[in-house]
Amino acid sequence: MTTRQDVLAARSRIAGQVRHTPLLSSPALDALAGRHVLLKAECLQHTGSFKARGGWSALSALPPEERARGVIAYSSGNHAQGVARAAAAFGVPAVIVMPADAPAVKIANTRALGAEVVLYDRANEDRDAIGASLAAARGLALIKPFDDARVIAGQGTVGLELLEDLPDGWHGEVLVPCGGGGLTAGVALAMEGSGAVVRTVEPEGFDDAARSLAAGQVLRNARNGGSVCDAIVTPAPGALTFPVMQRLCGVGLVVSDDQALHAMVLALRHLRVVLEPGGAVALAAALFAPGLPSEVVAIGSGGNVDEAVLAAALARFAATG
Amino acid sequence: MTTRQDVLAARSRIAGQVRHTPLLSSPALDALAGRHVLLKAECLQHTGSFKARGGWSALSALPPEERARGVIAYSSGNHAQGVARAAAAFGVPAVIVMPADAPAVKIANTRALGAEVVLYDRANEDRDAIGASLAAARGLALIKPFDDARVIAGQGTVGLELLEDLPDGWHGEVLVPCGGGGLTAGVALAMEGSGAVVRTVEPEGFDDAARSLAAGQVLRNARNGGSVCDAIVTPAPGALTFPVMQRLCGVGLVVSDDQALHAMVLALRHLRVVLEPGGAVALAAALFAPGLPSEVVAIGSGGNVDEAVLAAALARFAATG
Repeated sequence: MTTRQDVLAARSRIAGQVRHTPLLSSPALDALAGRHVLLKAECLQHTGSFKARGGWSALSALPPEERARGVIAYSSGNHAQGVARAAAAFGVPAVIVMPADAPAVKIANTRALGAEVVLYDRANEDRDAIGASLAAARGLALIKPFDDARVIAGQGTVGLELLEDLPDGWHGEVLVPCGGGGLTAGVALAMEGSGAVVRTVEPEGFDDAARSLAAGQVLRNARNGGSVCDAIVTPAPGALTFPVMQRLCGVGLVVSDDQALHAMVLALRHLRVVLEPGGAVALAAALFAPGLPSEVVAIGSGGNVDEAVLAAALARFAATG
Repeated sequence: MTTRQDVLAARSRIAGQVRHTPLLSSPALDALAGRHVLLKAECLQHTGSFKARGGWSALSALPPEERARGVIAYSSGNHAQGVARAAAAFGVPAVIVMPADAPAVKIANTRALGAEVVLYDRANEDRDAIGASLAAARGLALIKPFDDARVIAGQGTVGLELLEDLPDGWHGEVLVPCGGGGLTAGVALAMEGSGAVVRTVEPEGFDDAARSLAAGQVLRNARNGGSVCDAIVTPAPGALTFPVMQRLCGVGLVVSDDQALHAMVLALRHLRVVLEPGGAVALAAALFAPGLPSEVVAIGSGGNVDEAVLAAALARFAATG
């Protein structure tokens, strides 16, 4: 069972290796939302997403002789870069198994970080099986994207920074873009006992966490790909993350792809940061979801967007004057 | 004569009212530049530019009875928003004189901050005369955009943050987008004695600071408008800023509009922040100028870009794979 103590230990291991990201806000966004919205800009993190935290946390926790043989990860792109960056810094090989339809920018950036990229077909192949087989063949340590206590603890350091930065007396909800639940579970553990309510946010059609939380058991998505929110499309909540979310999180939220794209444009316009669609779902909920309190934090989990997607969204949600 | 002591005093007055902005970097940008480039992301400042500092610094330094009558500023847009934000927070009226061809987003944002906007024709009218006349008629305190010791001191707090955040032993140059020289002079004062070399960066055709520094006297630009770098187009260095720059700054740098637009796209792609073209000139110099040392800080001074300009630049400098 991952605990808050694990998150504190991860913070010690990654100190100085990740950015303490800022909390951004804008009067214009607050007016749009009808509430005070703070964006935790993890898109400004090294590698462009919070995954740099979990990657460093996991590699720094490996026994040195195991780490020296190298690591392997499977990822739609952000975890890939987080693991590749940490591996490069530790001077050990990294093999990354990525879906062939991942954004080109993520594949290119992962290679630029020195990793060997192995592509697979997201619709017809099982990345877990591919990862396990490569790991066995080459003696690599497998760093799972979310169902790993060291990874969950690393992502939880986002929550520790929130506790540090939120003003005294802040009472609100923390909205977290949720794929497999590593960030959500980590943040919920970090903030346990603080009074803040942590909630998952997912895109329509890929709301496995919200449905699983409602049902009290792990449910799967019908599809494994095809969302513009590629960063947070996973088959189901993890075996390690789900019990934490079940114990600590509120009801899950769901936003449309259009709302995610619109939130991405509004972040660009009013906060001057680039989010990817999957990284913008929590901001979308903060802006557009009914029934939220007057103070929310939205975690902007990543910013590795394909520029064609960004340009199309800019044209579609152009400022009207 | 504005001094480093004035900058320290400004920091005390604006503490808690402006953001301590992050220093961002990326291995991809370093590889492109052939040097280590840090971006001081003032585009993440309140109102989207460093001008929130000078605005607050100036208003907080006014005698309360004078401040209560209201303030007036003339600005291409960023100073407008900085003054408007401070005026709104102090609960006093603000009148802002803006060129009619300022980016629509800046005019809209200034109005949204509660200011009264008066438009003028940049090519044929003199904003100083307009500002002085309105100030006299309504008893408003004029907050000049750069030639004001309180404003220079406020902008200089950017330099104090650099001193705090740069690693021990950092030896490099600090490149500053330069219009009238308020930011440059302030940063140079803040960093006086630190060993860092502060240099102005301007767009081609509007290199009044570089030419003035080379000539040892204030020279004017041939034109007053028509640059995509609208934020930093001013007629000439200021009477207060020029002596400071002359005493403390290195040789001025000049970049092309294309380089500024390209740097804007690279900041979006690799640092996930939005710069406006004028705010990207120092980054452009860091990336493209010859003869710079191995470590530079580029100040990303603002991010209030018209989205049509951003979209066109994205298409023009599209990633090639």
